[in-house]
Amino acid sequence: MPKLILIGGILDLGFMKAPLLAAEPRLDITVWPEDDGAEAEIAVCWRPPAGLLGTMPKLKLVQSIAAGVDGVLNDAGLDPALPVARIVDDSLPAAMSEFVLWSVLWFHRGLDQVVLRDRPAIIWRRPPQQAAADRRIGVLGLGEIGGRVARALSAQGFAVAGWSRTPRSLPGITGHHGPEGLDALLAESEILVNLLPLTPRTRGILGAATFAKLPRGAAVINVGRGEHLVPEDLIAALDSGHLRGAVLDVFAAEPLDPAHPLWTHPRVLVTPHMAAIASDGAVIGQIVENAWRTACGRPPLNPVERGRGY
Amino acid sequence: MPKLILIGGILDLGFMKAPLLAAEPRLDITVWPEDDGAEAEIAVCWRPPAGLLGTMPKLKLVQSIAAGVDGVLNDAGLDPALPVARIVDDSLPAAMSEFVLWSVLWFHRGLDQVVLRDRPAIIWRRPPQQAAADRRIGVLGLGEIGGRVARALSAQGFAVAGWSRTPRSLPGITGHHGPEGLDALLAESEILVNLLPLTPRTRGILGAATFAKLPRGAAVINVGRGEHLVPEDLIAALDSGHLRGAVLDVFAAEPLDPAHPLWTHPRVLVTPHMAAIASDGAVIGQIVENAWRTACGRPPLNPVERGRGY
Repeated sequence: MPKLILIGGILDLGFMKAPLLAAEPRLDITVWPEDDGAEAEIAVCWRPPAGLLGTMPKLKLVQSIAAGVDGVLNDAGLDPALPVARIVDDSLPAAMSEFVLWSVLWFHRGLDQVVLRDRPAIIWRRPPQQAAADRRIGVLGLGEIGGRVARALSAQGFAVAGWSRTPRSLPGITGHHGPEGLDALLAESEILVNLLPLTPRTRGILGAATFAKLPRGAAVINVGRGEHLVPEDLIAALDSGHLRGAVLDVFAAEPLDPAHPLWTHPRVLVTPHMAAIASDGAVIGQIVENAWRTACGRPPLNPVERGRGY
Repeated sequence: MPKLILIGGILDLGFMKAPLLAAEPRLDITVWPEDDGAEAEIAVCWRPPAGLLGTMPKLKLVQSIAAGVDGVLNDAGLDPALPVARIVDDSLPAAMSEFVLWSVLWFHRGLDQVVLRDRPAIIWRRPPQQAAADRRIGVLGLGEIGGRVARALSAQGFAVAGWSRTPRSLPGITGHHGPEGLDALLAESEILVNLLPLTPRTRGILGAATFAKLPRGAAVINVGRGEHLVPEDLIAALDSGHLRGAVLDVFAAEPLDPAHPLWTHPRVLVTPHMAAIASDGAVIGQIVENAWRTACGRPPLNPVERGRGY
């Protein structure tokens, strides 16, 4: 079996050693930084320290422990020829749809006002209500997960539009693409849901320019990546009264710093990166499968298309 | 046009005079208690003071301003021959489905823990997750609204069972009925949703005996009537650790008394009777229509079946 190294970063991955060995006792597993990875053939990681993978000369595979691989691909020191694999878990689109549906209803029904605004002071105040068919939701990103989320919101009766880099057609969803398409989508989105992959083009997309194009009173749900959001711009747009509120599940550094002003902002709900997480079974099973494939010189399960960025 | 009297109770109905007159300027409207109702022919009310309707000898119709009429029918002094009408609004089942779906996801995804338990103290803690297909929801009441809610939860992937007084068959929903059926439903409900009508048999059904039959860690959502719930029994079941939490939208007296312990209980979310409210348009339109019908001696729109209680 190939030598496998667990590389922590913002997450400590040492806890994975026991379940991996339980699934395949013949695995040879070390943990960085106790081991420097000089002999490692498979690097298991999520967001490894920048440049680290480039110091491991014998790598044959970089195995992400999640569906997202931006934390690996954004490392300029990574050998472009090295295969990268991600975890695919069929339950992720369903879990993401649940979380986004909850967050959309949080704003749509005014539960943000009941819970964050009124509850601390014991105020009985019924928020204004409107029909789902009149509530315009904009979904950024119509890939595997974004498309599924858009359809789930549409099935719930909402008026849903979506934006993608290249044209996509989904039944019941108003489609937009390209830079002009983004402006059109933003202008009509009362609730904006971000499900874009993180690439150099999408980094910081949830910033002042985007917020200014949303209608007054719009809400923002970020379930993409923390780096999509410019936190200072969000706080400014909330405090000026232009935006109504935000549900934020992802952050550039996790856990979010306890001193970060987003934690206590009265119109922000911070959730602990819980919207959609690959199950332990899927993660362990796919890492073991790819260890076997690497041992046999076969291409990995769920390889990433490097040029596209996801 | 018949003389119409607006009778407040726990709600002041004087605010309805202007929109009613805007819709039909020829209406003759008074407001109790300024007018004692001696000449009134139509009493417009929701929960009138007990015995009051029996003191108005010329009444031809009691018109509820809502879908629920228990506040009228439970008045022992009401002439059994007097027609009672309620408001029917097609948007109510959709609104109730949204609210219940939000409340079920609140528990299913552990957002109750993120918001009520962890948020005040700035704690990043990911709640345990499970698939919707493994989450067993019990719905009490499978009438027009309960049936719609059960189907919406089933469409979202949850394992849904329902209980009704008489046998009902709904596709995808495990049906129970009668007293033994109730025990069977409770034993398997991780999240219990109450949508029963309020009758002498269902009053207090959300009490100690019912809670004891729920599995440990179950959650309760009350969107039926406040009188279904025995608040002391709920608080005891929460404080003993048997129940996990509750979302409560309805109360025997509304607004809920600011001093009531439910307001500040750390595992209870109080919402201001907002799950499903008839639209102003439906309420005003149907009252005006029934004023015309009464003037012409015709039976009212949306009459209540008195013997059944709803």
